[in-house]
Amino acid sequence: MSTRLPRAVQELIDQFGRLPGIGPKMAARLAFHLLQQPESTTIRLITALDGIRTGIQPCEVCGHISDQQYCSVCRDDARTDSQICVVEGSLDVIALERTDVIHGRYQVLGGVLSPMDGIGPEQLRIAILEGRITSRHELGEKTELIIATNPSLEGEATAVYLTKRFAPFLEAGTLQITRIARGLPMGSDIEYADPSTLARALEGRNNL
Amino acid sequence: MSTRLPRAVQELIDQFGRLPGIGPKMAARLAFHLLQQPESTTIRLITALDGIRTGIQPCEVCGHISDQQYCSVCRDDARTDSQICVVEGSLDVIALERTDVIHGRYQVLGGVLSPMDGIGPEQLRIAILEGRITSRHELGEKTELIIATNPSLEGEATAVYLTKRFAPFLEAGTLQITRIARGLPMGSDIEYADPSTLARALEGRNNL
Repeated sequence: MSTRLPRAVQELIDQFGRLPGIGPKMAARLAFHLLQQPESTTIRLITALDGIRTGIQPCEVCGHISDQQYCSVCRDDARTDSQICVVEGSLDVIALERTDVIHGRYQVLGGVLSPMDGIGPEQLRIAILEGRITSRHELGEKTELIIATNPSLEGEATAVYLTKRFAPFLEAGTLQITRIARGLPMGSDIEYADPSTLARALEGRNNL
Repeated sequence: MSTRLPRAVQELIDQFGRLPGIGPKMAARLAFHLLQQPESTTIRLITALDGIRTGIQPCEVCGHISDQQYCSVCRDDARTDSQICVVEGSLDVIALERTDVIHGRYQVLGGVLSPMDGIGPEQLRIAILEGRITSRHELGEKTELIIATNPSLEGEATAVYLTKRFAPFLEAGTLQITRIARGLPMGSDIEYADPSTLARALEGRNNL
């Protein structure tokens, strides 16, 4: 005997199943959830989906998601231009903003260097970052570049690449490049830490 | 500093986050995934959601989800009326259909007895099930009722309730009630099994 769901229901399950992190069972659960809810629940979701179809684009300066020419961070006069935090994507901006530690700007690269996937410096927002640093350099203003790419192979390689590319500014003394610390996550156990994380935590040890 | 996403993006994250099993981070991931995809991906999802807004309702006989008056199982002439498998929801029908073991019909209760949540027999599709059994009883035809509610407290209580309620048919010999076996899942380890599952597996032991 075969499972013959109404075509509309199967189609919704298929569409949910195409989203990242949603498997077939989860997709079916979502579809049946909506079927059991008042129609207004589905309508609200449709309206929200419709809302992102137009008017959302990367900020022209930093590449962070925005519904205006410049994103909310770049528009904020209370923030300093002397600090630029380099991240892979907009979700990283959101995560970092939750820390309340960054009081400067961002540069969303739109990915990381990955030659295997054909992603070189030209595919990332590196030229515009260079332009931002150059402008400040020419005005004799100092900038701190906080490289907050993921602690992955590609993220580390991208950090190294940026450091080499911007070496002239480092030598000129107008640029400082820092990298977010790799170490033990808060609340974790040394006994369960993987060796590479533990090695990083030891290498990056601080004076007490 | 606060996270100020474009309102449309935040709204979509909120709507995704209202779905079961989707937390705030997953919701953000889904929204940003759609923002990075061609618009056609979002449009396909919208169309699919729109498709379930009308024309989907419970089968008039068994309660399984359908886009017609009777569901595909109830419409299938190749299936026997002598077997009715009682389940909590439509997702259970789909799971059971994948086994190719049920060659009869279903009764989707629409939940389980749960006095704490105000769900009594009247809130479930039990009267219609009784009608189906009564009709066959009056024609002198035998029916097997396979109770496939979840092996939870409520699922077991519902199975017991149905057995008591349909006792007259049992006594008349027109009804046989079976319960899906509780035991060790295939591929599992006895050493890791919880005591109640293991106890059920022992109680339900079969001759080899």
